[in-house]
Amino acid sequence: MTATKFAVVAIGNAIVDVIADADDAFIETQSLNKGGMTLIDADRAQSLYDAMAPGREISGGSAANTLAGLANLRHGTAFIGQVADDQLGEVFAHDVRAGGIDFTVAAREGEPPTGRCLILVTPDGQRTMNTFLGAAQYLPESAVDKDKIGAAEWLYLEGYLWNAPESRAAMTGAIAAAKAAGRKVALTLSDAFVVHGHRDEFFELIDAGSIDLLFANDTEVRAMMETEDTEAAVTALAARIPTLVCTHGAAGAEAHHNEEHARVPAEPVAAVVDTTGAGDLFAAGVFAGLAEGRSLADCLTMGAVCAAEVISHYGARPEKDLRALVKARLG
Amino acid sequence: MTATKFAVVAIGNAIVDVIADADDAFIETQSLNKGGMTLIDADRAQSLYDAMAPGREISGGSAANTLAGLANLRHGTAFIGQVADDQLGEVFAHDVRAGGIDFTVAAREGEPPTGRCLILVTPDGQRTMNTFLGAAQYLPESAVDKDKIGAAEWLYLEGYLWNAPESRAAMTGAIAAAKAAGRKVALTLSDAFVVHGHRDEFFELIDAGSIDLLFANDTEVRAMMETEDTEAAVTALAARIPTLVCTHGAAGAEAHHNEEHARVPAEPVAAVVDTTGAGDLFAAGVFAGLAEGRSLADCLTMGAVCAAEVISHYGARPEKDLRALVKARLG
Repeated sequence: MTATKFAVVAIGNAIVDVIADADDAFIETQSLNKGGMTLIDADRAQSLYDAMAPGREISGGSAANTLAGLANLRHGTAFIGQVADDQLGEVFAHDVRAGGIDFTVAAREGEPPTGRCLILVTPDGQRTMNTFLGAAQYLPESAVDKDKIGAAEWLYLEGYLWNAPESRAAMTGAIAAAKAAGRKVALTLSDAFVVHGHRDEFFELIDAGSIDLLFANDTEVRAMMETEDTEAAVTALAARIPTLVCTHGAAGAEAHHNEEHARVPAEPVAAVVDTTGAGDLFAAGVFAGLAEGRSLADCLTMGAVCAAEVISHYGARPEKDLRALVKARLG
Repeated sequence: MTATKFAVVAIGNAIVDVIADADDAFIETQSLNKGGMTLIDADRAQSLYDAMAPGREISGGSAANTLAGLANLRHGTAFIGQVADDQLGEVFAHDVRAGGIDFTVAAREGEPPTGRCLILVTPDGQRTMNTFLGAAQYLPESAVDKDKIGAAEWLYLEGYLWNAPESRAAMTGAIAAAKAAGRKVALTLSDAFVVHGHRDEFFELIDAGSIDLLFANDTEVRAMMETEDTEAAVTALAARIPTLVCTHGAAGAEAHHNEEHARVPAEPVAAVVDTTGAGDLFAAGVFAGLAEGRSLADCLTMGAVCAAEVISHYGARPEKDLRALVKARLG
């Protein structure tokens, strides 16, 4: 193994978030899945957008948000994802690159347009996501740059990409490239509906030793282990994988690394404005902690610090200097 | 005169703001005009955007921001402005209509794209605007809907539109339509550079009795009267026009209406995040106060309340319920 240029290279959906306030009546009238992520087609995206309040556009995408956090924490990162050759694609590419993230995948010509996620934020700060994947689902395997994967300590994969055949194939190729280069692979399950659709494939990867680090929240862990008992699910899943990080929302997070176990509370937040990106930024803190050789508990605390920052404002990209926040918290 | 459907119909630049943080060194390196508005061409927009930090896209445009405030305050409004047939044009149109503003001008096919304003926000909350007008400058006179102008108590004109020949012609037609329908006309001078370029035309309109209400800040008033003495400039300008509203930034605002004079301090703000839209929302509060038949001083206080809300967050569109804020302040 040679020295690595990037702490993390990530493959994810290239998405611009469209964020608007909504009350619970709107969530109900529009039959939205409150707190969850739902894939929608172009027609539904148009009708929902027409019904939404005025919005703000902020680049998003789960893995890209994680890299934005890592870059803010001064770690080298590279992103692989697919935008279209349009204005929202330019916005996404600008925001990624301006954040210091390496991004060289060419924009895709023609239809569909760049993916977007229509996010309704209710007064409780909860976000309800409705994603039109657009160009993101057409990430070709050829876009998976094996040199970059070889130059990164970690390959980080967004579970959402298992939902489209083209991007799923790209994932498989990426894992093979990482393993061939002796690199580690991390996966986020992304959402319980992803687990419902691809549970067997994820277990095949896990049992083949292809996944070194798994990120999940409690709903996803329960879906993986097909039980309603979160604690039992975490214990059982942790036994099958080198490192498991499980977030529990406002109740904090835990990690299992071989025989080691750590658990931390959530960091205090003055006012929860928009929970979008909480898990993504948690992962950023954990990756940064690992890169800095911190203890398992401190890695989780870094995740909690980053998550607390991102839920204190609209949008899933950090606005404050995360490194300063981590230094203030952990020294 | 028949009953009016709208409190205000406004003609302005249809612009999407791209807002990013920047330090003062960036403002200097890029030779930007701190605190001001500079018109830039497509090449400069690209090079500045490339150099900017990750941004957030929020619909803007001075007069459109004012209408967003008025609509939030539950007054009927209509907007006339030009977007292109592209994604940012869709964003602008959505945000205007979703805010409850009537907007029916068809998107313009082909180049240039929808206008955008690259806004750098420094740690002091000051905004430095760099505007690529794009399609906005091609607002045709045919888009000026005379029926809407006849159906509105006020026609509100954005001084920025005097800078392009096509939109300037549209303004002239709009004023004639308003006067023919017996409606009142308000003008915002927008920026000192607009005054420098069009001072004589503005005085022609004023002296012809075409402008019933003029909005200006102290720089613009000084530019109009070609003096460094703000107080003398306000007094002299007020003598030439039925109503003059002059904002003084953190020092508050004053208004002269015939023989009447009122002055109010700025409303307190916990933290000034981004001053973009302060003047626009001040105008919204004043128009709402006039529509509600309030005293001159209360009209100014409503303006100050709306301005205080908009500078407490990123973006020039209100996020809180302005009517509730006004009620809490004035009853």
